[in-house]
Amino acid sequence: MNMYDLIQKKRDGFTLTTEEIKYIVNGYTEGEIKDYQMSAFLMAVYFQKMNKKETVDLTLAMAASGEMLNLSQIQGTKVDKHSTGGIGDKTTLILAPMLAALNIPVAKMSGRGLGYTGGTIDKLESFPGFSTSMTKEKFIENVNQHSICVAGQTENLAPADKKIYALRDVTATVDNISLIASSIMSKKLASGADAIVLDVKCGTGAFMKKEEDACLLAKTMVQIGEDAGRKTVALITDMNQPLGRMVGNSLEVQEAISVLKGEGESRLQELSLQLAAWMMVIGGYEKEISYAYERLKSTIDKHLALDKMAEWIESQGGSKESVYEGKGLKRASRQKMIFAEETGYLNCLDATEVGKSALILGAGRVQKEDKIDLGAGIELLVQNGTQIKKGEAFAVLHYEEEEKALQAEKILKNAYEIKCDKIEEKSLIKKVITIKDC
Amino acid sequence: MNMYDLIQKKRDGFTLTTEEIKYIVNGYTEGEIKDYQMSAFLMAVYFQKMNKKETVDLTLAMAASGEMLNLSQIQGTKVDKHSTGGIGDKTTLILAPMLAALNIPVAKMSGRGLGYTGGTIDKLESFPGFSTSMTKEKFIENVNQHSICVAGQTENLAPADKKIYALRDVTATVDNISLIASSIMSKKLASGADAIVLDVKCGTGAFMKKEEDACLLAKTMVQIGEDAGRKTVALITDMNQPLGRMVGNSLEVQEAISVLKGEGESRLQELSLQLAAWMMVIGGYEKEISYAYERLKSTIDKHLALDKMAEWIESQGGSKESVYEGKGLKRASRQKMIFAEETGYLNCLDATEVGKSALILGAGRVQKEDKIDLGAGIELLVQNGTQIKKGEAFAVLHYEEEEKALQAEKILKNAYEIKCDKIEEKSLIKKVITIKDC
Repeated sequence: MNMYDLIQKKRDGFTLTTEEIKYIVNGYTEGEIKDYQMSAFLMAVYFQKMNKKETVDLTLAMAASGEMLNLSQIQGTKVDKHSTGGIGDKTTLILAPMLAALNIPVAKMSGRGLGYTGGTIDKLESFPGFSTSMTKEKFIENVNQHSICVAGQTENLAPADKKIYALRDVTATVDNISLIASSIMSKKLASGADAIVLDVKCGTGAFMKKEEDACLLAKTMVQIGEDAGRKTVALITDMNQPLGRMVGNSLEVQEAISVLKGEGESRLQELSLQLAAWMMVIGGYEKEISYAYERLKSTIDKHLALDKMAEWIESQGGSKESVYEGKGLKRASRQKMIFAEETGYLNCLDATEVGKSALILGAGRVQKEDKIDLGAGIELLVQNGTQIKKGEAFAVLHYEEEEKALQAEKILKNAYEIKCDKIEEKSLIKKVITIKDC
Repeated sequence: MNMYDLIQKKRDGFTLTTEEIKYIVNGYTEGEIKDYQMSAFLMAVYFQKMNKKETVDLTLAMAASGEMLNLSQIQGTKVDKHSTGGIGDKTTLILAPMLAALNIPVAKMSGRGLGYTGGTIDKLESFPGFSTSMTKEKFIENVNQHSICVAGQTENLAPADKKIYALRDVTATVDNISLIASSIMSKKLASGADAIVLDVKCGTGAFMKKEEDACLLAKTMVQIGEDAGRKTVALITDMNQPLGRMVGNSLEVQEAISVLKGEGESRLQELSLQLAAWMMVIGGYEKEISYAYERLKSTIDKHLALDKMAEWIESQGGSKESVYEGKGLKRASRQKMIFAEETGYLNCLDATEVGKSALILGAGRVQKEDKIDLGAGIELLVQNGTQIKKGEAFAVLHYEEEEKALQAEKILKNAYEIKCDKIEEKSLIKKVITIKDC
């Protein structure tokens, strides 16, 4: 077997065998196959596509390229949730304590990565003293004791994906459904969950703009998960406007807490409940979504989830007061209100622009080394479709540097329009994809 | 302008501008654009193709990536000939002294390269003392004095082509007509000829197996040449059997001399005359092919070309005796006859296999560093379609090592069959392509 022949085989539209795909993934991870051959191969995949079996084989080979976590020492079925990425998505911070409050184990490995805001780990670091670096033993012990723990991803999780993604990113070979799906699913499979709920975002603020594309990605990932022996379901959810009111790390933590206090924005609360309910069902903890939903809802109503969050934050080095009273949570030193210039109904044109605006304020990373300003971000005072009068504030910027605030304001204003006619609200959950749909 | 966007542009089927193609070629030659981006780009070109204008732009950018030879100090129109490569092709060694004998300047830059046998320069080194390394001044002086000189290619001739070809060779992106044509023509344009005759081989022993593909390549190259202001014509010629009787460096030199003595194999002599006649016509030295052909033929009949070859070899350090008497020409120390195992008509199934056989005997190079055995090769005693009896010899191997001879014999025997029915001879020149055909 040699890489030249395999590039040619894919180039000419033939199907690669499991062994051939393993050879490519392992050879590339170990550096025996060079970047220039891999990028030619990826471009051939872009044009000739991969079938279902090839995509599954690719994902499994990538998952197996590094450490495969073994969570068998944690009691119960482990269910993981993954979002393809949206602006203001803090559902993990909400659904994790809800599930844990019902004694469902939440054993989450999370990353930092690049983006408009930080990853779950960055957000959690808004709690003073909170730490996500620990031994595997401590991680398992924490989950068994508190039903919840979030740890930083091991460096050696699906290294093939890291290397392949970095190459795709500079060779215009990102946009291929098999490559996208395998990149996401390889990490999930290596993370050791028994079941996986996928939140596939769709809209102006998502990687997938069209529902059709989001569904195809969802089906591909569900197929991979199920073929790998993990119960998998995907929800296609709206990302035409930011999720909830807050965009930014510490701001999002505060919003998550307010949802657990029963004071959250309705769409954010709804999506968190729905995702968690699906996690319960595919994890075998409940038969019906409606029952699961009610049980989860009661953890909010009875403040059980809030208490669980306080317990959790404390167990990883933070303090309960920061959850109950927001004590010590990072805050930006300056705030600036953004006012409506017309009267009408507020409409978000492009959620990505809101993300860019937050990024400029310091909420995210462009490069790995960039330092995040945990206090920076955007607070949206008004949701899509709400009536607003000229001169009323619709957003607040949280920031440190005046100059950046001016740039962010400009972008944010362009991200919204004020319309004369009432706006039809887009449904939050567009579709649920299970293996039956694949 | 950045490479990522240009990869994407080509990937998505858009046409690149002249400036964009220059950016890619220069950036890659200078190392600013990395191999992995270039190979993704080349694969995108493989799938999306290049149009005529892009192909010309690519060729011109590659030609301009290094030294552009200026032959204006040589009197008269300089006509170059290029063959796409065939087994036993020694036409350069024949037509060069024929043209020079008619005072038509032959200023040839030649390479070594890889292949079943050596390049023109390797072949010429079969003459003891013959040297192709010289200053540009000496090269021009030689042409002006003797009407003929063959020198080694400067290292800095179309460096973009060298680098791109090496990358294509390991990334399965060789088979694209624009990339093939630009690779050949960039070197020809940089070599400074005013007019170019292309010998595009077609058949089992050629890169282009089908006449249709050979014609497309020929048309693309003629278009490039004419767009670059050089008179260009292409002959599509048969390569289903080796050209002439000899395959191997010193053996081919001996065969070339025998053609000049009027004792050559007819197809080889015919192709040499036809190519040279076209060179005379597009160089403006003669109006009609038939007149040119007659004048060239007379250089053989009157031994003018033979004398010119002797003068030429002497002018570059060799001796006239080696031309007239074969003195000092490299010869292999062993010979082995290959006998027919049946009675019937000899038919070459695959000329490439004959080439491989010669390569095994030591006549060619697999890697740049390989040393060629100038004396090694194959002598074909019988041409395609000739009747042969069981037990009669049809070839002689010239070699040094017994073990290699056994391997070569096996391959050679598989390259030929003996058929009961008479074989129809394939026409030598299948087509002539001029700009009117493009």
